[in-house]
Amino acid sequence: MVEGFGRRKTMRKIYLEDTPLQDAQKKIVDSVRFSPQVEIIPTREALGRVTAEPIYAKVSMPNFHASAMDGVAVKAEMTYGADEQHPVRLKRGEGYIEVDTGDPIPDGFDAIIMIENIHQIDDETIEILEAVAPWQHIRPIGEDVVVGEVIIPDRFKLRPVDLGALLAGGNVTVPVLRKPRVVIIPTGSELIEPSDTVAEGEIIEFNGAVFAAYLQEWGAEPIYHGIVPDDYAMIRDAVKTAVQDADLVLLNAGSSAGREDFTVHIVEELGEVLTHGVATRPGKPVVVGMVDGKPVIGLPGYPVSAYLNLEWFARMLVHHYYGLLEPQRPRVKATLGRRVVSVMGAEDFIRVTIGCIDGQYIANPLTRAAGVTMSMVRADGLLRIPPGDLGYEQGESVEIELYRPLEQIQNTIVATGSHDLTMDVLHSLLRKTNPERFLVSSHVGSMGGILAIQKGEAHAAGVHLFDEATGTYNLPFVQKYLRGQDVALIQLVYRQQGWIVKPGNPKGISSVHDLVKPGITYINRQRGAGTRLLFDYLLAQEGLDREQIYGYSREAVSHLSVAAAVAGGTADAGLGIYSVAASMGLDFIPVSEERYDLLLSGSFLRSAQGEELLSCIRSEAFAREVEALGGYSCRDAGKIVYAMSAD
Amino acid sequence: MVEGFGRRKTMRKIYLEDTPLQDAQKKIVDSVRFSPQVEIIPTREALGRVTAEPIYAKVSMPNFHASAMDGVAVKAEMTYGADEQHPVRLKRGEGYIEVDTGDPIPDGFDAIIMIENIHQIDDETIEILEAVAPWQHIRPIGEDVVVGEVIIPDRFKLRPVDLGALLAGGNVTVPVLRKPRVVIIPTGSELIEPSDTVAEGEIIEFNGAVFAAYLQEWGAEPIYHGIVPDDYAMIRDAVKTAVQDADLVLLNAGSSAGREDFTVHIVEELGEVLTHGVATRPGKPVVVGMVDGKPVIGLPGYPVSAYLNLEWFARMLVHHYYGLLEPQRPRVKATLGRRVVSVMGAEDFIRVTIGCIDGQYIANPLTRAAGVTMSMVRADGLLRIPPGDLGYEQGESVEIELYRPLEQIQNTIVATGSHDLTMDVLHSLLRKTNPERFLVSSHVGSMGGILAIQKGEAHAAGVHLFDEATGTYNLPFVQKYLRGQDVALIQLVYRQQGWIVKPGNPKGISSVHDLVKPGITYINRQRGAGTRLLFDYLLAQEGLDREQIYGYSREAVSHLSVAAAVAGGTADAGLGIYSVAASMGLDFIPVSEERYDLLLSGSFLRSAQGEELLSCIRSEAFAREVEALGGYSCRDAGKIVYAMSAD
Repeated sequence: MVEGFGRRKTMRKIYLEDTPLQDAQKKIVDSVRFSPQVEIIPTREALGRVTAEPIYAKVSMPNFHASAMDGVAVKAEMTYGADEQHPVRLKRGEGYIEVDTGDPIPDGFDAIIMIENIHQIDDETIEILEAVAPWQHIRPIGEDVVVGEVIIPDRFKLRPVDLGALLAGGNVTVPVLRKPRVVIIPTGSELIEPSDTVAEGEIIEFNGAVFAAYLQEWGAEPIYHGIVPDDYAMIRDAVKTAVQDADLVLLNAGSSAGREDFTVHIVEELGEVLTHGVATRPGKPVVVGMVDGKPVIGLPGYPVSAYLNLEWFARMLVHHYYGLLEPQRPRVKATLGRRVVSVMGAEDFIRVTIGCIDGQYIANPLTRAAGVTMSMVRADGLLRIPPGDLGYEQGESVEIELYRPLEQIQNTIVATGSHDLTMDVLHSLLRKTNPERFLVSSHVGSMGGILAIQKGEAHAAGVHLFDEATGTYNLPFVQKYLRGQDVALIQLVYRQQGWIVKPGNPKGISSVHDLVKPGITYINRQRGAGTRLLFDYLLAQEGLDREQIYGYSREAVSHLSVAAAVAGGTADAGLGIYSVAASMGLDFIPVSEERYDLLLSGSFLRSAQGEELLSCIRSEAFAREVEALGGYSCRDAGKIVYAMSAD
Repeated sequence: MVEGFGRRKTMRKIYLEDTPLQDAQKKIVDSVRFSPQVEIIPTREALGRVTAEPIYAKVSMPNFHASAMDGVAVKAEMTYGADEQHPVRLKRGEGYIEVDTGDPIPDGFDAIIMIENIHQIDDETIEILEAVAPWQHIRPIGEDVVVGEVIIPDRFKLRPVDLGALLAGGNVTVPVLRKPRVVIIPTGSELIEPSDTVAEGEIIEFNGAVFAAYLQEWGAEPIYHGIVPDDYAMIRDAVKTAVQDADLVLLNAGSSAGREDFTVHIVEELGEVLTHGVATRPGKPVVVGMVDGKPVIGLPGYPVSAYLNLEWFARMLVHHYYGLLEPQRPRVKATLGRRVVSVMGAEDFIRVTIGCIDGQYIANPLTRAAGVTMSMVRADGLLRIPPGDLGYEQGESVEIELYRPLEQIQNTIVATGSHDLTMDVLHSLLRKTNPERFLVSSHVGSMGGILAIQKGEAHAAGVHLFDEATGTYNLPFVQKYLRGQDVALIQLVYRQQGWIVKPGNPKGISSVHDLVKPGITYINRQRGAGTRLLFDYLLAQEGLDREQIYGYSREAVSHLSVAAAVAGGTADAGLGIYSVAASMGLDFIPVSEERYDLLLSGSFLRSAQGEELLSCIRSEAFAREVEALGGYSCRDAGKIVYAMSAD
């Protein structure tokens, strides 16, 4: 047997299987035989635990006949014949006894009369005007729970009210299944434990924390092993030890077919590989196998792939362990805001945002990159495209599995268009005013924002488009592209655009002419971004050609990304706003002040949400917080530049 | 001011308000001003916690340009012009460097070529056939998270994936709102802490455990105070102390207007009562008030009323504290199996079971008694009848708020008809075979069961109806009431019916003649129960009149309830099965052996669920467990007595 790193060259197998997901799931379920142990725990601590057997009542509830009302206990026989004409008088003690709700029925008495139906004659005498039947207003023994009755079935996940019934039935403790133990082994020499400083080449290990949290939600006991470097023998030993005590072992990453992807070889050496690669996008490179009778799942390193596979395999196995049905997420029908393509044969899982625009749910796909954790944070739901489908057209109705409650989605303002930090300020202010509101912004550039408003895909769009002909911002574009549509243009901020360069401006950049000098790398914005149009305008003004700019075709989707590229040293300059340069400690050479407006749909502006947003924009707090960022002016913020009602 | 018990007489106020629920909710929300404190906690432990402010990324993820593929890093410029005819050769070190996914891009290199697209010429040389663009297959700095970006908004409940994004952005700790502290004060001199033995007059305090579990689910910190007896001063002092540290105080019970209902007076003395009584059924007697700026809720003692009010007020306030929207339960449209009446002006909340019968959801109301905890355990959902409605007819379509996931409801066999302990055995066996299945049984008597099958409201019904004319069981009734319908009758068990009497049979009961003797109290079964028909038959045979039986009109709905009444001393005898007498240590005088069958709908018998049920009935385990109960014989169990296909 070849050991550890010695195998590196020979282990380079460069293909993965394309096992259909359901087949891979079935294979592991058929292989595994869980035999959960039983724990006896206090019922009060049993919320969410799963019963190990049917639970019977040990006592009745109530355990005695009890009054169901405030009133008096009587002997029914003594009331027979009573009516308005023939009232019956009863004496305290022998004829009646006062009782409150829940009191035991005194010996010899067999009915209750409500306090409202009694005439008190004197301290010792009452009069009643109606006969009562035996057992009236009496809670008989066992009305709630009868001794010997099954209160809760076998293999049942206990809810709050179940704990009440168990305790009412005298079950102070309850036999439950021990939680399945899931060992999480993060592997990778580049990994470091979470930290607020990261050196080049280091990656924060955060997948483990996400796995642990999910497992906790599903009722398992996560056991975090700690990081193991990319060393075949060390990982193998960790797996060998883990399977002894665990019900399930998760390895992350190393599940693909690369040079340092050891998982498949280790599972092969120690046990049996059932699946290596499923026909999904993302999530393909997964290893599913058995070692010493325990399932071992090798999860991919990219967060999105890892979390999807965790759900497909670990969630399923945890429920299988308990013998519980996997709860399904709620679904909603939505209209696709953009076309989505898929390849034949692979099952596609597309993260989407959902906006509730004029009462319609509009779903828009997020990035499909498996490395973008934030896309899972931002996703409102998941669109599944079956292996046989080639995708869906814009405007098609699709079913979305929800990641966020629908009530939240209904309370979310969908903002798009150009990226600006003031949108974050606005979101915070809005939530301070009304915490039920959310503002979600995606960055598609100013032109993209105009199109989104045109198509009814967003409530608001940030725009800063300079019109050369008129020398003004935004309005000419709105009039051109949204003629006759019910929209409004609201002044948000004035902001400084300028060259973002390294501290001290080592390359001495002061104008667009400096960017064509040899050895200067530029970082551009994406097509449709107002900042890109500004750059094109600056080039044209000086008669320069975009071909002369090294890096013109490299696109960043936000001001922050431009600044990050400069800070990271892969670009010497980019065009962007002052505040991001300042936040990353970069230098800033002003180029121009531009007007950044919010374009709103008319129906949104007139809605309660729209009113709240407008009053945030016009608040002193907004001006104060935005101007503190630097490079902004809030003069005129909230002015309605243009409004056209479609009526 | 009058103190403690001295006030008892004068405190007897016998009315409650009828405040509409929404008004009562609005009043308390308008009065309360929460100002949650902030805690800094490790991000890894922050699942389900609510952020106290927007969280920004402290580092970028990745923090360096990283390879997105396994392959080689190259300089894009060196590949320009490469194609099939003009391959470019690159030397290791200067021309290319091997990298794995996630590795930093070596200095001076600016693109990645995937391993699959490389021809290895020798150990030091590769050949490529296609030019690559700069930044191909490179994850730029900040692709996932850019430093300075808002990762998670203010007042957001953290999900597993959010923890990942926070850690990826260098947030090892996170500022969250301290959980709201909710003090639970159970009051009542009759209450005892949970126990498996209960004396007469004692009631197990279990509401507190249910409140605590719900509060935990909603993200609050429950603080269990321990039982306080019905003493005005002691309860008042407990409230005074509790409000100093708590965000919310719950008192249970004493919220009505009876002699020992102190809550309203205590809140009045210490602060302000906002509402005393809401216009709901059940749940009316609630006290909502403010003491020292803290909300105090007086919850009713009956469990169902208490849990509904807890949800209406405590759940709402916990979400209000955090500034979160209250998530709504999923809903489903169902057909009402029975008529439901409501009174004008009150909002009705009816617990229902839901069966999925032949693809249709059928909702049937459970008991409306507020004291029956088990009705909350058994409920699949809640039907809300608005104050202006008088109820709904059988067959009407209604919207039900779900307590149980729809998947579980779809996997539930709905059994009704007569009550027998073997149904519990069957349920346990069924879940051992397939834990995804549930069997839910309600007790409506044999005739009720036949009607339920006739109307398509149940899958199965237990029946034991003796036909005098033929001297046989069940079949004549099926042929009479279900003529031409697609049903099947399956033999389940033979069982002994007999007189259930106190140990030693002190009243010397051996035949129906002994029941008419003076001083003998009988406990009967409800109308439509096979056991009641048997009793009527026994009376008729001996020429006795039901008027002669003291207690004939007192109805118990199950064998267990009959035995409980005898064990509790409120009846001397009842007719029932051997096993319940044995389980409560009572004596049993056999009367007859009867056949207890299961009546099934034909479509159910042919379904996978029906097949599973039938094979459980025919299993050895079933016979073994049932016969061990005593008084049963399983000869012929599973025999198809009658089957008629409707086709």
